[in-house]
Amino acid sequence: MKNLAKEILNGSISAAAELIRKVEEGCRDANDDLQALYPYTGRAYILGITGLPGSGKSTIANLLIKHYRDKGMSVGVVAVDPSSPVSSGAILGDRVRMIEHSKDREVFIKSLATRGWYGGLSGSAARIINILDAMGKDVIILETVGVGQTEVSIMNFAHTTVLVLVPEMGDYVQTIKAGVLEIGDIFVINKTDKRDPGELLVNMQSLLRNQDSAGGKALWKQQIFLTSAAAGSGFDSLTGAIDGHRKYFEEFKKTDYLIKRADQELKDEIYSYFAGYFMRRLNEDKNYGKFIKQICSRQKDPYSISQEFIAKILGIKDGSLQEK
Amino acid sequence: MKNLAKEILNGSISAAAELIRKVEEGCRDANDDLQALYPYTGRAYILGITGLPGSGKSTIANLLIKHYRDKGMSVGVVAVDPSSPVSSGAILGDRVRMIEHSKDREVFIKSLATRGWYGGLSGSAARIINILDAMGKDVIILETVGVGQTEVSIMNFAHTTVLVLVPEMGDYVQTIKAGVLEIGDIFVINKTDKRDPGELLVNMQSLLRNQDSAGGKALWKQQIFLTSAAAGSGFDSLTGAIDGHRKYFEEFKKTDYLIKRADQELKDEIYSYFAGYFMRRLNEDKNYGKFIKQICSRQKDPYSISQEFIAKILGIKDGSLQEK
Repeated sequence: MKNLAKEILNGSISAAAELIRKVEEGCRDANDDLQALYPYTGRAYILGITGLPGSGKSTIANLLIKHYRDKGMSVGVVAVDPSSPVSSGAILGDRVRMIEHSKDREVFIKSLATRGWYGGLSGSAARIINILDAMGKDVIILETVGVGQTEVSIMNFAHTTVLVLVPEMGDYVQTIKAGVLEIGDIFVINKTDKRDPGELLVNMQSLLRNQDSAGGKALWKQQIFLTSAAAGSGFDSLTGAIDGHRKYFEEFKKTDYLIKRADQELKDEIYSYFAGYFMRRLNEDKNYGKFIKQICSRQKDPYSISQEFIAKILGIKDGSLQEK
Repeated sequence: MKNLAKEILNGSISAAAELIRKVEEGCRDANDDLQALYPYTGRAYILGITGLPGSGKSTIANLLIKHYRDKGMSVGVVAVDPSSPVSSGAILGDRVRMIEHSKDREVFIKSLATRGWYGGLSGSAARIINILDAMGKDVIILETVGVGQTEVSIMNFAHTTVLVLVPEMGDYVQTIKAGVLEIGDIFVINKTDKRDPGELLVNMQSLLRNQDSAGGKALWKQQIFLTSAAAGSGFDSLTGAIDGHRKYFEEFKKTDYLIKRADQELKDEIYSYFAGYFMRRLNEDKNYGKFIKQICSRQKDPYSISQEFIAKILGIKDGSLQEK
C-alpha cells in the first residue's frame, strides 16, 4: 500500500491534506493512493447543503457540524465555492464562519475552488469525499450553490440534500418553481429573524401541495423548516428531519444511489483524464499559435482545426471522425 | 457549401433553427455547416446579461431587445437556463416574458438547457452564438445566471457584461464581495419599485471606491444604475452606458478578447468531441455492467477501471498513463 494512504488510514490529518492537495492540482500520481483507500469508503453519511450565495448556508453547515460533534461524531466538510472568474482561488467569505471548528481534530474542512479545472470539478469533489470517507469521517457535509450545471451535478453525491432559502428569495422560487422541489429533500427558510417568511412559506407549501395532488405517492414527504441561524432557532426540528431522511435513504434509495454514483465517478475519471491530456497536447503543439491566429482572422475555423488535431493525436484519418 | 449554411446566409430562419437543433443534440454532422458559416461570424455585438434567478434579468433583456429593435437593429438571444436536475428540459419561467417579440422576424430567441451535455454547454453556446452571428444579427444578448462554473465561463463570450442585482441581494454581494466587480462591466440594481435600493447601493459604491483607491487606473469606469423593469425607469442611462462600453471594448479590449475566445472555442470543440466519444465507448462496452458492480461492491475502484479502459481504447500499456 502507498504511503499516504497508509498514513491516512492510521489517522494522519497531514497525509490527508497532502493527498487532497495532489487531487486539487490534478496530479495523476494521486491515483495509487486513491485506489488503496477505495475499499475503506462508502461508510460516511453525505449531507448536502445547497442555496444561493447569501442564504446563510455556511452558518447552517456550521451549526450542523456542532450538532454532530456534540453526538461524538467526526465531520468532514467539502465546500464548493462560487468562483471568481479573475482572482485566483475561491472567495473565502463564508469560510471564516467555520473557524470556530478549525482547531477540532475531528473536523476537517476543505474549500474547493471552482476554477482552473476544465470540467473536472465534479470528479475532484468525488475524490475528496472519498478521502474524507476513508479517513473515517462519520458525516461529510457537502456545500454548493444551488444553481449551475456542475454545482447541481455535484449534489448527486449527497444522500440527503437540504435547500436553504431566505424570505427575500420569493422571486427565485417563483422563477424555477417545481425545480425547487427537485433539488431538495428538506427545505429551510433561513434568516427568519430579519424578514417575515410568510409569503415564501405559503408559496412553498402550495408547491408541495400541488405535487401531492399530482398523484405522487412519494415515500418521503418533503418538509419546510423556519430557522434563524443568528438566533439559533429551528435547528432541533431540522436535525430531526435530516435523521429521518437518512433512515429513508438507507432503506429505499441506497441501491440506486450506489449505481448512479459508480457511473458518475467512472465517467468523471475518464473525462478528466482526457481533458487534461488533450489540453496539454494542444498547448504544447508547435502550431498552437498559428491555430489561434487562423481562427481570429477567420482564415480557418475552430471546428476543422479541432478535427485535424484530434485525427493527428489518434493517428487516424480526419474524415473518420465524422459521426451522426 | 452545405445546404443549411447556404440557406442561413440567405436569411432562412427555419434553417437556422434546424442547425441549432443539431448542435443541441450533439450531432457531429453539424460541423460542415458550422465551418461554412464561420467566415461570416465576428460581426455581432455580444451583450451579456447575468444575475441570480429572480433578479429580473429576462425582463431587462426584453427591454433591451425593444431598444435595439427601435433602432432598426436585428437581435438574437441565447438564454442559458438554470436546469432542473430531474425534469427534462429547461425551466421556461422567464422565457414567456419574451413572447411579445416572438412574432418579430428580426428577433431570434433560443433557450439552452443546461443538462444532458457532459461539460459541453460552453461549446454549445459558442456554436449557437456563431450561427446567430452568421445570420447577420446585429446584437446577440447572452443571458446566464451569475454563479456556477460553466455559466461564468460562458460569460467570457460577451463583449459587455451587465450584472443585475436586486435590493434584497445585499447578503449575496457581501458574500462574494470583490467577485461582484469582476463579473460585471456595468451594474444594475433592479426592482427598485419594490424595495429601497439604498443599502445595496451604498455597499456597491463602497466596493467600487475601494477598487479605485487600490491603485487600479482602469480605462473603463464601472457604474451602477437603478432600474425598475416594471415601471420601465432607468433604461435610458443604462443603454447609454452599454453603448459607451461597446466603444471602449472596440478600442481597447477586442484583440485580447479574440485570442481568448479562439482558445476557448478550440478547447471546447476538442473537449466535447472526446467527452462524447469516450462516454459512448464506455456505454457500449460489454463489461460496463461489471465495472459498475465492482465499484459498488468495492471489489475494484473507479480509478483503476478508468485507467484500464483508457489504455484499452488508446491501445497502450496501462502504466504509461501515469504522469506527474
